[in-house]
Amino acid sequence: MTQTFSYEQLFHFVYQVFLKIGCVEEHAVLATRVLLSADIRGVDSHGVARLSGYLRLWEAKRINATPDIKIVYETPSTAVVDGDAGLGLVVAPFAMQAAIEKAKKVGTGWVSVKNSNHFGIAGYHAMMALEHNMIGIAMTNASALVAPTFSIERMLGTNPIAVAIPAHNEPPFVADFATTTASNGKLEILQRKNEEAPLGWVQDAKGFSTTNANALKEGGAMLPLGGDREHGSHKGYALGSIADIFSGVLSGASYGPWVPPFPAYVPMPENMPGKGLGHFFGAMRADAFRPLAEFEEHIDNWIRRFRLAKPAPGQEKVLIPGDVERETEIIRKKEGIPLFDSVVKDLKEVGGKMEVEL
Amino acid sequence: MTQTFSYEQLFHFVYQVFLKIGCVEEHAVLATRVLLSADIRGVDSHGVARLSGYLRLWEAKRINATPDIKIVYETPSTAVVDGDAGLGLVVAPFAMQAAIEKAKKVGTGWVSVKNSNHFGIAGYHAMMALEHNMIGIAMTNASALVAPTFSIERMLGTNPIAVAIPAHNEPPFVADFATTTASNGKLEILQRKNEEAPLGWVQDAKGFSTTNANALKEGGAMLPLGGDREHGSHKGYALGSIADIFSGVLSGASYGPWVPPFPAYVPMPENMPGKGLGHFFGAMRADAFRPLAEFEEHIDNWIRRFRLAKPAPGQEKVLIPGDVERETEIIRKKEGIPLFDSVVKDLKEVGGKMEVEL
Repeated sequence: MTQTFSYEQLFHFVYQVFLKIGCVEEHAVLATRVLLSADIRGVDSHGVARLSGYLRLWEAKRINATPDIKIVYETPSTAVVDGDAGLGLVVAPFAMQAAIEKAKKVGTGWVSVKNSNHFGIAGYHAMMALEHNMIGIAMTNASALVAPTFSIERMLGTNPIAVAIPAHNEPPFVADFATTTASNGKLEILQRKNEEAPLGWVQDAKGFSTTNANALKEGGAMLPLGGDREHGSHKGYALGSIADIFSGVLSGASYGPWVPPFPAYVPMPENMPGKGLGHFFGAMRADAFRPLAEFEEHIDNWIRRFRLAKPAPGQEKVLIPGDVERETEIIRKKEGIPLFDSVVKDLKEVGGKMEVEL
Repeated sequence: MTQTFSYEQLFHFVYQVFLKIGCVEEHAVLATRVLLSADIRGVDSHGVARLSGYLRLWEAKRINATPDIKIVYETPSTAVVDGDAGLGLVVAPFAMQAAIEKAKKVGTGWVSVKNSNHFGIAGYHAMMALEHNMIGIAMTNASALVAPTFSIERMLGTNPIAVAIPAHNEPPFVADFATTTASNGKLEILQRKNEEAPLGWVQDAKGFSTTNANALKEGGAMLPLGGDREHGSHKGYALGSIADIFSGVLSGASYGPWVPPFPAYVPMPENMPGKGLGHFFGAMRADAFRPLAEFEEHIDNWIRRFRLAKPAPGQEKVLIPGDVERETEIIRKKEGIPLFDSVVKDLKEVGGKMEVEL
């Protein structure tokens, strides 16, 4: 069912593919690193499984392999970046780096991005801040799959939000989550296995919560975090909306139901109000708030205390956001990355077309 | 069951009480305005119903009626405010104003606060940014009532997050929500009525989700937004943690299980790692990202489009965050604010003690 590949093996393959579509070497390396950060951390839906999708967008001329990415508007603590329809995998690190540079100078930096594409996992970009002793924030909008509370229309993407907080002796706090009950990746796994979804993940075309994991293909929609009004779905809807507005409305990207779809075969929405899809990044220097040593002492204390919170019966321990992905990374670096046969087949087709051997 | 009071009537009463505890006039006006912004907007749990609680904290010498609130650390885009144990109702607007002033100069402002107390509704502070054409963000930590995913220990408050986004011809987008499935206020209403809670709001002392609205008093805990792991409670736990770290760890306030409890009869936690409770505020100028007219055009377009999203059968319309509170405000300004008899009794006791007539 799965075959296992080393990180290096996949890296070489993906890197060659990005070179073949015309990326300059620096972009090919970066895009590969960002894409594979998903696979190595266990977020299988956002890694090499999407390579063929990116390729199809490039074939449809919706991704520009040689973008001129630049800041088009700025203040001392903010900027807007125009991604020139480049790979989000390359545009996003450029923008996050711009936020970091602003933070070095004035304490924090906030960058909204237009004219971009899918940026891989939000966590990668947020984590860029960590080595600078900064808190990193990343969010994005995405093609509409999610119905607002009380609606049956797909208006929002699964719009993830990531927040990475550096620590000292403890590993960092890294939250990275879709603003829906469950990510589309988890739903796709159930679809592949022909299994039912828990209630609260999706609704059918009439707006009733359903266990049918394929409801999305039948006119249904994903549900905002909370699932229904009684369980706080208006909060998930608000969070997804905030990510959409910060990413799209602040920058001049498209937003809401007009965000360009990831599958290249889906026609572009009509009357798009902006360019491409949008992202939003933030960087805050820890020592813009208190001396670094004090911050480090207390964030370590926070993490240790929460790790020691009393577990519920049957649970081994309480997790800190980022624990699972970090532990997965350690294992996969040693033992390799397992890919579903369907993903391997997909990569081989990409390799055949681009004349790159897996 | 309820008695109705005009806004002015309640304003005069609360203002006199704050004067009696020694607030200077400016602080008494401000604290009253912030407290009543909850009642007028329909967030009944956070308004005058809490006045006696604030008073008991003052009696216990845990609130300083004449604080010297000041910035103790700063960069061009950030600051830390020491609230000097003042009313959060006064400390928070001071800090939010500081964020706004920073934003005027460098595009955005970010202020973390220590040594504060309960600040009323987060939405009030976030909304301060609106008249400046800025996006406002407010969050706070609070006494621990919430168990992290997989835990039975109360580690986090209901730690609300508010985001207010200005519009042009449309009313603003104002999200203001606890990072739990349901707010403690909603739970208290069920307790008062002796009704059951939906599953996913609280767990019992052993960590099992329960419909017993009184589980909290029996060693249970509130649940993070999502309710359980399968429905994304790790996301609610992460959001509550982010609010806690931004409010407490960045500023030097207490955090996690050490946050000072709101009920004055609950002893203070031992070995508190910081001072008082903490808040976090942000202000971002819309025109720090694109010309204001462009932003206004597109945020209005966003709001209109979402308002027109196709409603589910049986639902009248899709709401924009803030709609309900704004509509409540219009009604209550005209028709007055209904208070439960128990709240009126409580206020009369306060009045009797402080020699102020309701």
